[in-house]
Amino acid sequence: MGITLHDYWRSSASYRVRIALGLKGLGWTSAPVDLRTRENRAPAHLKRNPQGLVPVLDIDGHRLTQSLAIIEYLDETRPAPPLLPADPTERARLRAVAHAVAMEIAPVNNLSVVAHVEDLTGSAQARPDWMRHFMLPGLHAVEALLDHPATGPFCHGAAPGLADICVVPQVYNAERWQIPLDRMPRIRAVAAACAAVPAFVAAHPDRARPAV
Amino acid sequence: MGITLHDYWRSSASYRVRIALGLKGLGWTSAPVDLRTRENRAPAHLKRNPQGLVPVLDIDGHRLTQSLAIIEYLDETRPAPPLLPADPTERARLRAVAHAVAMEIAPVNNLSVVAHVEDLTGSAQARPDWMRHFMLPGLHAVEALLDHPATGPFCHGAAPGLADICVVPQVYNAERWQIPLDRMPRIRAVAAACAAVPAFVAAHPDRARPAV
Repeated sequence: MGITLHDYWRSSASYRVRIALGLKGLGWTSAPVDLRTRENRAPAHLKRNPQGLVPVLDIDGHRLTQSLAIIEYLDETRPAPPLLPADPTERARLRAVAHAVAMEIAPVNNLSVVAHVEDLTGSAQARPDWMRHFMLPGLHAVEALLDHPATGPFCHGAAPGLADICVVPQVYNAERWQIPLDRMPRIRAVAAACAAVPAFVAAHPDRARPAV
Repeated sequence: MGITLHDYWRSSASYRVRIALGLKGLGWTSAPVDLRTRENRAPAHLKRNPQGLVPVLDIDGHRLTQSLAIIEYLDETRPAPPLLPADPTERARLRAVAHAVAMEIAPVNNLSVVAHVEDLTGSAQARPDWMRHFMLPGLHAVEALLDHPATGPFCHGAAPGLADICVVPQVYNAERWQIPLDRMPRIRAVAAACAAVPAFVAAHPDRARPAV
């Protein structure tokens, strides 16, 4: 029984799950859901996930939703290599960094949110302004969280884990919106360390983008 | 060594941690941080959490941030009663419901986000409109996720857990913004079941509100 990932190449949450699958050494089939044509709101996808979101992962005879719930599942069912450390305090620190991205920055910069802001303001400039307004201080806070003795080449020590999985897609998004990362050396160092890891390379949106 | 919770009575994330502490039977001291006077952006609080967010929990000699990371820590260090089931698939389902609230609905309806929308539009009506625009479909999706054989009186079976801890503060917020829940019988049933549990009662914002 194979693993199928219903994803969208540019979705941060999809990108996170692609990285995690790669780090776990799992093969999968991608079943793209095009957010631009609102395929995610079509009955076929709403049946998979009533939230109308990607990613959705079909694995082990189950259908899972929500990127971080999926990644925790992968880590619980395939413990090696671990995506979270063993110690509860370290786990809490790692999850706090991950959630600082996934619960604070990413949801507010979601496509559906900025599209609504553009509708409300009637201004095309509203979108980049909104991105910058929330992403810049959000990333500065993550940078401050990384000012911690446990930060190694990766967010937590010498191997990539859940926090890196969240930070890298956020950095991709920040670069896309030209958010300056020059005052965030720790985030840039983490992104550089991850860029040398095959699972991160393979999961990149440019690789996941369907051929036109 | 006692437990100190830096919280704000009306913050959903603080409310979640208060419920979890109560379910675990832990006593704690509240150290309120007033979001209305921007005490959360003052140096004293930024030193606790560079994100400038509540809650922050001082426990076991550690300082923890991010509500769901804190709750997972509590569950890992104080396993009884469990806030997540033992089976990975069930854990994934429970986390998906929790994250559907905590990663999709709550961040977008955050005080700092709606305040910015109000600034952008210059309209006082923007705030309730925004709340409704995102909270209503978000909660309908949660209602659909609860259309599942594992849903019991609580989100997952016969005891309250991480999902209920997220749903109840969201229902409080929905009622505050007069979001109609009449077509969400499962969410209302969960909220009613939780309202009979002392830890949920004790954590309610009205109880946590400091006397003026």
